[in-house]
Amino acid sequence: MLNASPDLPFQIASSKCLQPGAGDGVRHSPIAAVVISSGDVDCIAGLLSLRESQNFALYADGFVQRILFENRVFRVLDKRFVVFSALMEGRATPLLDAENAPLGLSVEPFYVAGKVPLYQETSDDIAALRRDDAVIGLCVSDGVRRAFYVPGCGAVTDALRARLGPKDVLFFDGTLWRDDEMITAATGVKTGTRMGHISISGPDGSLAAFAGVPLARKVFVHINNTNPILRDDSAEAAEVRAAGWEIGYDGMEVGL
Amino acid sequence: MLNASPDLPFQIASSKCLQPGAGDGVRHSPIAAVVISSGDVDCIAGLLSLRESQNFALYADGFVQRILFENRVFRVLDKRFVVFSALMEGRATPLLDAENAPLGLSVEPFYVAGKVPLYQETSDDIAALRRDDAVIGLCVSDGVRRAFYVPGCGAVTDALRARLGPKDVLFFDGTLWRDDEMITAATGVKTGTRMGHISISGPDGSLAAFAGVPLARKVFVHINNTNPILRDDSAEAAEVRAAGWEIGYDGMEVGL
Repeated sequence: MLNASPDLPFQIASSKCLQPGAGDGVRHSPIAAVVISSGDVDCIAGLLSLRESQNFALYADGFVQRILFENRVFRVLDKRFVVFSALMEGRATPLLDAENAPLGLSVEPFYVAGKVPLYQETSDDIAALRRDDAVIGLCVSDGVRRAFYVPGCGAVTDALRARLGPKDVLFFDGTLWRDDEMITAATGVKTGTRMGHISISGPDGSLAAFAGVPLARKVFVHINNTNPILRDDSAEAAEVRAAGWEIGYDGMEVGL
Repeated sequence: MLNASPDLPFQIASSKCLQPGAGDGVRHSPIAAVVISSGDVDCIAGLLSLRESQNFALYADGFVQRILFENRVFRVLDKRFVVFSALMEGRATPLLDAENAPLGLSVEPFYVAGKVPLYQETSDDIAALRRDDAVIGLCVSDGVRRAFYVPGCGAVTDALRARLGPKDVLFFDGTLWRDDEMITAATGVKTGTRMGHISISGPDGSLAAFAGVPLARKVFVHINNTNPILRDDSAEAAEVRAAGWEIGYDGMEVGL
């Protein structure tokens, strides 16, 4: 099962572990594995709520592993329960739970346009903050069907488009409709570009960038609360849907 | 206003800033100041949800300041918005908001029996984990009335009892009813003693320890979900109430 929420970290859980009664104790969690796609706080802080005696496997690439190592608060993830596993760019890794049982899914990370996490910023210059290995997208596969999870992405490149096939499902960065949206809404001082997020609209936006790419389904996720597509009756929501996109929501479940 | 929740970090907010419309922007938060009482994840992780462009003053002692400095993820607390202020043991500090406006409250920290945070543990031996300066209690005062906030405490000492007067309100560590409660409930492998929490019941418990101490009100907070006092109709809840204690709950408000 893939679980897509507009603003929460992605969840991957095996249907086996989601069966009622399959847990082992009153505090059992159905989350068998967690895959981290960037070091930003909205991707890693949730780990502090899975702390202590919860069995799960934690998959992260070298960039994020280093952050979890250097920030000692993450040692609340007790290694007697949490199995740390490495993701390597370009390599499909079979997901296992904390007892090494296969979850029936593999995940392959690939770098997407991004920047260092906010707390590593030492400049206000987006060019200086960009880093090729700071943000990954994920190709999740059960061996037959594939889902691409790309909740943070600064630009849609030919390399990204080339990964996608007509039977695939794409979950993509829907943070902002317009680059200056948070400034005009007086909720922030940064553009989407500055935050490492491509916008949906405009000639350089994701709607245009994926227009010619055949996909089985495409879903905007990680949607900021200033984004007008969150209003069902907005012109922007209609435009997105007319282009074949779905708008992610809390509790959305997508079967492959 | 003092806001006591059984399991969330304590909140202090000025009534001025809680007035509707007093905010400055659609994302305004009514939290004017945050006081941290230990470095444990349940005391500090919430800071990551107050991140970015929220004005507030952050009060912490040297032990916690060092943790926030060493764990770089907390640099999401942008110093253009968040004012870091030092608490010193034994010194009453007037609380100011991020614009240096007085909030009408002072806070005086004092050390209580405690241990290092979980993620700093390098041993399973509680004696080796104890540290005199790792956990503080807080005396909050408006100049007339006082509230003591002690959500984590390993032992009730004569020094702690001596601080309290008959007009004071005490919020105290109500984590466990019995020391081995999490083990018998199969929710954990640690005793309360091992976690740095005195239990409520028994000859060495907090109920007995505060029995002879006159107070205006006394409220258990930081109550673990295994604690039977959370069930309104339990014998343990009745025993606590008969001894003059109140049982904290989410959204509880206590006027001094």
